[in-house]
Amino acid sequence: MAIRTVDCAPAAEPALGCGPLIGLPQEKRPLRQRVLEHLRASGSASRVDVARELAVSPASVTAIALELIERGLIAETVTPRDSARGRPPVALTLVRGSHTVAGIKLAADVHTAVILDFAGAVLAEASIPAARDRCTAAALLAETEALLEKALAEAGMVRSALAGLAIGMPGLIEHERGRALWSPLLIERDADLAALFEARLGLPVALDNDANLLTLAELWFGAGRAMSDFALVTIEHGVGMGLVINNRLFRGASGFAMELGHTKVALDGALCRCGRRGCLEAYVADYALVREARIALGANLDEKKNVRILLRELFDEAEAGNAAARSIFQRAGRYLAMGLANVVQLFDPSLIILSGGQVRFETLYADAVMDEMRALSLDTGRTPRVEVHAWGDMVWARGAAALALSALTERLVGEARP
Amino acid sequence: MAIRTVDCAPAAEPALGCGPLIGLPQEKRPLRQRVLEHLRASGSASRVDVARELAVSPASVTAIALELIERGLIAETVTPRDSARGRPPVALTLVRGSHTVAGIKLAADVHTAVILDFAGAVLAEASIPAARDRCTAAALLAETEALLEKALAEAGMVRSALAGLAIGMPGLIEHERGRALWSPLLIERDADLAALFEARLGLPVALDNDANLLTLAELWFGAGRAMSDFALVTIEHGVGMGLVINNRLFRGASGFAMELGHTKVALDGALCRCGRRGCLEAYVADYALVREARIALGANLDEKKNVRILLRELFDEAEAGNAAARSIFQRAGRYLAMGLANVVQLFDPSLIILSGGQVRFETLYADAVMDEMRALSLDTGRTPRVEVHAWGDMVWARGAAALALSALTERLVGEARP
Repeated sequence: MAIRTVDCAPAAEPALGCGPLIGLPQEKRPLRQRVLEHLRASGSASRVDVARELAVSPASVTAIALELIERGLIAETVTPRDSARGRPPVALTLVRGSHTVAGIKLAADVHTAVILDFAGAVLAEASIPAARDRCTAAALLAETEALLEKALAEAGMVRSALAGLAIGMPGLIEHERGRALWSPLLIERDADLAALFEARLGLPVALDNDANLLTLAELWFGAGRAMSDFALVTIEHGVGMGLVINNRLFRGASGFAMELGHTKVALDGALCRCGRRGCLEAYVADYALVREARIALGANLDEKKNVRILLRELFDEAEAGNAAARSIFQRAGRYLAMGLANVVQLFDPSLIILSGGQVRFETLYADAVMDEMRALSLDTGRTPRVEVHAWGDMVWARGAAALALSALTERLVGEARP
Repeated sequence: MAIRTVDCAPAAEPALGCGPLIGLPQEKRPLRQRVLEHLRASGSASRVDVARELAVSPASVTAIALELIERGLIAETVTPRDSARGRPPVALTLVRGSHTVAGIKLAADVHTAVILDFAGAVLAEASIPAARDRCTAAALLAETEALLEKALAEAGMVRSALAGLAIGMPGLIEHERGRALWSPLLIERDADLAALFEARLGLPVALDNDANLLTLAELWFGAGRAMSDFALVTIEHGVGMGLVINNRLFRGASGFAMELGHTKVALDGALCRCGRRGCLEAYVADYALVREARIALGANLDEKKNVRILLRELFDEAEAGNAAARSIFQRAGRYLAMGLANVVQLFDPSLIILSGGQVRFETLYADAVMDEMRALSLDTGRTPRVEVHAWGDMVWARGAAALALSALTERLVGEARP
């Protein structure tokens, strides 16, 4: 089984392929929106190219371009060309400075923010340590605001210059209604988080599950630029999943699909932080490893220790030959293989991307795990390719910012509609 | 948890809603095909209605209608109307007798066939007992041919009058290439079944996984007429699944998606007939129940007994209070709940249809199983509706015939293309 590990230091200026939206199928989105998204994806394009690409008449593109130019959202640029024949071609490009958005990833240890211009280029990045324990919505809001201010200062901007914000966080997040039904970061249940944040920050705020946003980041400036269908599995504080079918994020009927971490891998199994037993993440996520780490390390059970440090110690011990430490990773690896085999059996993806902090522990995605995944799957002769994308937190935040950009584009188009 | 059991004696003349095809998205299929499929779904419609429904110009519908009328595929019918004003409206309908197709479901105990006219109405049905054990492709072909002849005799037709055949069977079926990579009915692996059948029967033959065909049957003349998205789980000789997203069957990258029966519910668990351990169907399918039935019934382990009779005895014993028999159904029910909870976590469907022979054993879909499914799922407040559809084998065959009809329509349209 070949695994390809992709080194994923994100490029400073990605050509953001924000084409495929989440909500409507590509064909049903207003043409204005499709024109803007096409320009964002391609960087620049002539009217004729845009018309050809979107399979509409050049006249309709010309009319829309006129309106978007008048509104200051796009501009004409003359590109010199080799041949001396004819007029130099005129390309359309987005006006970068017309709008600015922010994206934030909230997590158990570090919160991360990024600010993008209208074309999707990164203007600033920032991060702050998270509160140690799960907190109230008010406390989370205060942390978010502090982080946002830090990123704005980095960009030399004021908050009122932002056109929108999107936030990704772990848990059962209802994107449509902007509510957090349950999150490991929050004490409250069913918190009306987007509305709370909007009221405090004075900005349009979109909320989403963090794995969905990492999947959107892959769709928009990662694997999705070459692939229309793929699955993404995140392994860090929990286990998440995103699925792209036909260039679109699959969300399920109520927006709660892809909770791979809470699929059951054992009846009456290990206790999960969701309160149920036998969930995949109760065997694979970092809190599952931590649960047994203290035993393997002979550490004081009462001692409060940073999770990343503890796991690093555990990993080093396993590498050094500590059998108990090795067995923790081996068992987690077998359950991960089982979870991945179930993804293969149900979705038959041609590509599975493994991502998130935990995947840096090679043991978890070692060849043995991949071999076991294959052994547990029906033999079709088409095992999916598995890639390990060692993205940092910043890419999750970029996924959030891309969502903010997409929501902004929808609003702008909505305003323009007759 | 409310379960609705739908009594599913299929109507003799269903209005076949064959609109949504499997391959291409609705918009990308040729307009000729969409016109034919719309007429099949609606029974009859005026040119103006067709144009409105398909969002194309009336002129293009008129041109296509002219060609299809000349080819004898559709006809004009004048419908009287209440008002005396204007010309009576002219509707287009499919010419029922223009083509005839057959659909066959191959299974471990009984094979079933149905013959449909071009509009999707049932002309004849037939079934024959299956060979007791897994057999060679040649033997399966002989059984299929005998069944087809029986159905043709029932319809008073000769084989040369058939325009196409589709066959559904359990296992890893590669629909695109017409191959059976593995099937519990077959001794051979990777059998080039569609080509073999085509050569012997002299007909175009499409092959598909049986659960996919039952899902198509639901999509075309069952739940799908009201729902654009649903999941279907079949429990009988094995455990199968089909998923409809946005009116289309989801097949995965290589056509092997939705193998719910072979998702793992236990590491190193019960042996499955696929040769692996811990598959859901190794706990829930009829062979899993049979494995323990003889112990619970104190029956002779060597005795050869029909599976359906044995399971009926087991069920009666459980009803009568035999604790061992009850525990077999209870355990199967718990694992089924676990499998369904995993479907809920990953797909977040608004409707799950349970179908297949086993679902007649009320124990398996009793309220206790549904309660456990809910208990094992994250609490989103949106538990999917679960319906039990007690279809007989004939509906699976109708799904196959609908696939044959769909393939035929594609061929006809291909011939017509300039």
